[in-house]
Amino acid sequence: MPIATPLTTLLKITHPVLLAPMDIIAGSRLVTAVSRAGGFGVLGGGYGEKAWLEQETAKLAGLRAPFGIGFITWSLAKRPELLDVALAAKPSAIMLSFGDPAQFAAKIKSAGARLICQVQDEAMARQALDAGADILVAQGTEAGGHGASRTTIDLVPAIVDLAVGRVPVVAAGGIADGRGLAAMMMLGASGVLLGTRFYASLEADGADEAKRRICAANSGSTVRGIVFDLSRNNVWPAPFTGRCLVNDHARRWIGREVELMQNVAAVAADYAAAKVSGDFDIAAVIAGEAVGLIHDIPPAAEIVERIASEAEQLLAGRRNSIASLA
Amino acid sequence: MPIATPLTTLLKITHPVLLAPMDIIAGSRLVTAVSRAGGFGVLGGGYGEKAWLEQETAKLAGLRAPFGIGFITWSLAKRPELLDVALAAKPSAIMLSFGDPAQFAAKIKSAGARLICQVQDEAMARQALDAGADILVAQGTEAGGHGASRTTIDLVPAIVDLAVGRVPVVAAGGIADGRGLAAMMMLGASGVLLGTRFYASLEADGADEAKRRICAANSGSTVRGIVFDLSRNNVWPAPFTGRCLVNDHARRWIGREVELMQNVAAVAADYAAAKVSGDFDIAAVIAGEAVGLIHDIPPAAEIVERIASEAEQLLAGRRNSIASLA
Ligand SMILES: Cc1cc2nc3c(=O)[nH]c(=O)nc-3n(C[C@H](O)[C@H](O)[C@H](O)COP(=O)(O)O)c2cc1C
Ligand SMILES: Cc1cc2nc3c(=O)[nH]c(=O)nc-3n(C[C@H](O)[C@H](O)[C@H](O)COP(=O)(O)O)c2cc1C
Repeated sequence: MPIATPLTTLLKITHPVLLAPMDIIAGSRLVTAVSRAGGFGVLGGGYGEKAWLEQETAKLAGLRAPFGIGFITWSLAKRPELLDVALAAKPSAIMLSFGDPAQFAAKIKSAGARLICQVQDEAMARQALDAGADILVAQGTEAGGHGASRTTIDLVPAIVDLAVGRVPVVAAGGIADGRGLAAMMMLGASGVLLGTRFYASLEADGADEAKRRICAANSGSTVRGIVFDLSRNNVWPAPFTGRCLVNDHARRWIGREVELMQNVAAVAADYAAAKVSGDFDIAAVIAGEAVGLIHDIPPAAEIVERIASEAEQLLAGRRNSIASLA
Repeated sequence: MPIATPLTTLLKITHPVLLAPMDIIAGSRLVTAVSRAGGFGVLGGGYGEKAWLEQETAKLAGLRAPFGIGFITWSLAKRPELLDVALAAKPSAIMLSFGDPAQFAAKIKSAGARLICQVQDEAMARQALDAGADILVAQGTEAGGHGASRTTIDLVPAIVDLAVGRVPVVAAGGIADGRGLAAMMMLGASGVLLGTRFYASLEADGADEAKRRICAANSGSTVRGIVFDLSRNNVWPAPFTGRCLVNDHARRWIGREVELMQNVAAVAADYAAAKVSGDFDIAAVIAGEAVGLIHDIPPAAEIVERIASEAEQLLAGRRNSIASLA
């Protein structure tokens, strides 16, 4: 029997598994695959390319399963008209990360969509609740992409304690299998949001070489920092930094960020060229510590099903499964 | 019904809850309290003071419950005779952390004690298994005291995958309640090892003011680094750093480690004086991210019982407890 939680009820989904709104990577194909499989696909609105957003939301028009659209809040604030494009696609939810959601909440909720807010500490969680968030995503530092410093196992119970009796909490950062979903439920989460795991899926809009590197990487081979943002001239506000696979470029510049900035024009030109040519020794593969648990590139539906069924088994027959371990 | 796991069977204990061998803090009083409550007390042999070890092991002579004794491996290598003192006390297990356990394994095992090894990555886990470890403790970066960089939620399943079918894995770092125990069991662990939570107990040999600061701290208010080791002239080998509460001294010196080293004589004198006088604005309170979950200073037995019963309830009646959250 599928795992029913306040999250599955609220979003009208079968499995408490959300796709993270990965900029560029989570396009309409991946959203469709995750939502059709009974999870909740969230389109990666990211920094907000209007043409891309119109094209991808158009492709979601026929989808007869709930889905969401995600934005980077501080970036959306520069182009607020993108929210209208998103809401026109009738998503069940808008997900906002990295910034105060207050200025967008009323419009989202009056359009009938739920407001999902991704937060990295208690202060941000309170801000999101004050703005009327319907769901909180507690994101630990293990996460791929931008995030902050608190770890998943520390942050999830803290946010659950704060949100208890108000809204469901979803855990994010370092989760890639059914064990992670079951563990997060024990901490009080109502579901999980996964980025890195879905990056290594057939339907993700990422380079094959990037997906292969995710499969090959061990955990411990990602790093959180500012080198890749500096190298692509993409300044982020504190406390956010980005996690990606360690590559030659990261090894070269980590610890020498001041020097990088003093040479930023040349570095950024090389970096941009590497992105175009798909040279991932220089261009970053954005991914989190969950890489250690990822060894294949299956269809996204298979990922959703594996996670759900493994968690169901663990939650039901736990004692046996643990007892068989040693 | 108590939670039975391969760990409880192996150590002949009632609850899968281990006390961390906290240097100075985990003395015979705390060990006795934890072991009598059905957990597994581990004496904090730490850096190894012979007189202290003889005195504390003597006090454990009458204890009719299983207990262990822990050492810092690289430090024990300097004073290997301390292992004889420890084994003479007939512990059920010797726990070794931070270094290759190979040179001590044969003596420990031929004395009839189990070998518990605390590890921070896969390479250390393989080294410990090769040496004949009977139990692995997978320690995440959230842990109080010395440790490395991988997080608990990333490390525990990785070590479980490596040890499966061979030895039980215990999770450590950031765990302080029954939710944490239940979550770690979902990841495949057979139990948990707790330091910071037991520091804030009546029987811990720590200053009252230190315990109060642990209760008052939020998570996010600890930091992992080398400032406190530098300040007490205690050099540790890479990749290990120490986590403690952020205080004035940490705020002053973090990011200025080179300058600290250039003034180390003066800083160390101030630091030593602060330790003596109990000035915790300068002297560090060694503690981990679990501080956010700790709000009281109960008897250690109550901690063991709370954790065990909360985990039992979660593992049995999970659906209801989650469903009640929102
Ligand atoms: C490739 C990639 C791109 C991401 N881009 C975004 C983004 O544009 N907006 C956002 O809110 N989060 C983004 N994230 C972070 C996710 O929302 C999520 O927190 C994270 O993927 C969860 O951790 P995991 O990667 O361990 O599953 C991104 C993550 C990855 C891996
Ligand atoms: C005050 C304190 C002292 C510690 N001293 C030692 C030690 O001497 N030897 C050791 O192996 N681990 C030591 N640790 C680390 C513990 O073994 C354990 O990994 C850690 O406490 C688990 O994380 P937690 O603090 O979040 O429970 C210490 C931890 C604390 C909090």
